[in-house]
Amino acid sequence: MTDGPLILVTNDDGIFAPGLQALAEELDRVGRVVVVAPDRDKSAASHSLTMQRPLRVKKLSVGRYSTDGTPTDCVILAVGKILGETPKLVVSGINPGPNLCDDVSYSGTVSAAIEGTMLGIPSFAVSLACEEPCDYGSAARFAGQLAGMILGQGLPPDTLLNVNVPEGSIAEIAGIKFTRQGRRKYEGAIMETRDPWGREHFWIGGGIPVWDKGEDTDAQAVKDGYISITPLHLDRTNYGALDYLSKGWADPFRAGEDQS
Amino acid sequence: MTDGPLILVTNDDGIFAPGLQALAEELDRVGRVVVVAPDRDKSAASHSLTMQRPLRVKKLSVGRYSTDGTPTDCVILAVGKILGETPKLVVSGINPGPNLCDDVSYSGTVSAAIEGTMLGIPSFAVSLACEEPCDYGSAARFAGQLAGMILGQGLPPDTLLNVNVPEGSIAEIAGIKFTRQGRRKYEGAIMETRDPWGREHFWIGGGIPVWDKGEDTDAQAVKDGYISITPLHLDRTNYGALDYLSKGWADPFRAGEDQS
Repeated sequence: MTDGPLILVTNDDGIFAPGLQALAEELDRVGRVVVVAPDRDKSAASHSLTMQRPLRVKKLSVGRYSTDGTPTDCVILAVGKILGETPKLVVSGINPGPNLCDDVSYSGTVSAAIEGTMLGIPSFAVSLACEEPCDYGSAARFAGQLAGMILGQGLPPDTLLNVNVPEGSIAEIAGIKFTRQGRRKYEGAIMETRDPWGREHFWIGGGIPVWDKGEDTDAQAVKDGYISITPLHLDRTNYGALDYLSKGWADPFRAGEDQS
Repeated sequence: MTDGPLILVTNDDGIFAPGLQALAEELDRVGRVVVVAPDRDKSAASHSLTMQRPLRVKKLSVGRYSTDGTPTDCVILAVGKILGETPKLVVSGINPGPNLCDDVSYSGTVSAAIEGTMLGIPSFAVSLACEEPCDYGSAARFAGQLAGMILGQGLPPDTLLNVNVPEGSIAEIAGIKFTRQGRRKYEGAIMETRDPWGREHFWIGGGIPVWDKGEDTDAQAVKDGYISITPLHLDRTNYGALDYLSKGWADPFRAGEDQS
């Protein structure tokens, strides 16, 4: 589409990732798509920023830019420099593999949507619970429809959507569920290997995650064949704990003094 | 201390950072301190993991280890490999400069405490609202006292503390306030510079942040001279938005079908 609302598309797998291509093509039916994405795989970059060196932007073709930074860097550069106007929507994905429970916190895909939200732009992240090579068809089509809904209805303030789609055709998907972010009940496995000189080193991030079994969680919805949509908030304050701590804890610097 | 509870200390500024040294020395009065920290500055690493290459661990002296990974990598390697037992507390810091409002999300310092919490260990992050060179005395002393309190009383489930200390002597600090995480009402400034060959590139992360003016925020407390303690939750779900979306949004794949 050469007119319509401006949509920024990014990801954490790099600008040539097939999930990004599928997403951008589908969103092109909904608005004017500009892609600004990392020039290589930046998985597990979380919300990291590049602050120790300057970033380069490369224009690959009309509406396609890569940077040598993280997904978050891409959103900042796109909105502050490349686009020339504030987009109406930021969409990040499609990630090959789910972003569920605690793992959301490591995700570059989700962090790009967090950055969009911080900049005041409705944003969502889309991940596909697949093993590569993945068929992005259903996830892309759902992302296109969700984009249209958000452009029409907006999103609650300071809130992004974390979308996880199960593998399969649209007919095979059970429906959508709005979910909470679950917990991952597992400690990351560490694999010990040796380099050619016999020195030990360690790989992290392996192992099989054991998800929270809560009925209403993101992980359970995907396991049951539903598209999971979790509204995530910029504000991480635990208000219950805030109330509890405010009442119960003394100031250790002032202990013994009058606490009035 | 050669006995007492095991305390893991880490940071995002690297193992030789003076804020880490001050923190480790103070916590040594409270328990057995082991430091596992990045071998170099990893500021703004957020909660990123190193998954594309193996990680090396270097033992520098008794109870002092560096890794070539991120703060989060350090916590995972410490708990899963180096320590040999689960620590009773994870403390991350002392960061030179505050970690307030939205900026918490970029922080490697805070993310190390998030990782500790994910692993089921009471954890907190300490930052000092200073410009370098910083005097870490008051912040270290407060961290030691807080560590003692947490070892005695525990923390609410799935919750870490983000502590920000204003500069100054203990007498100059107004007290402690339990706060919520505020918003940063500013879009990151981008500085355009050129390399020796005339090619443009961009620095991000500059500019002067404009904090949320809310009375009860982390930023306001520090501005008023208080130590701010914000309880942050692993669960980022916006439950108000979850309720709203669950009631109001149709499934676009099933629109027109019976929604019973």
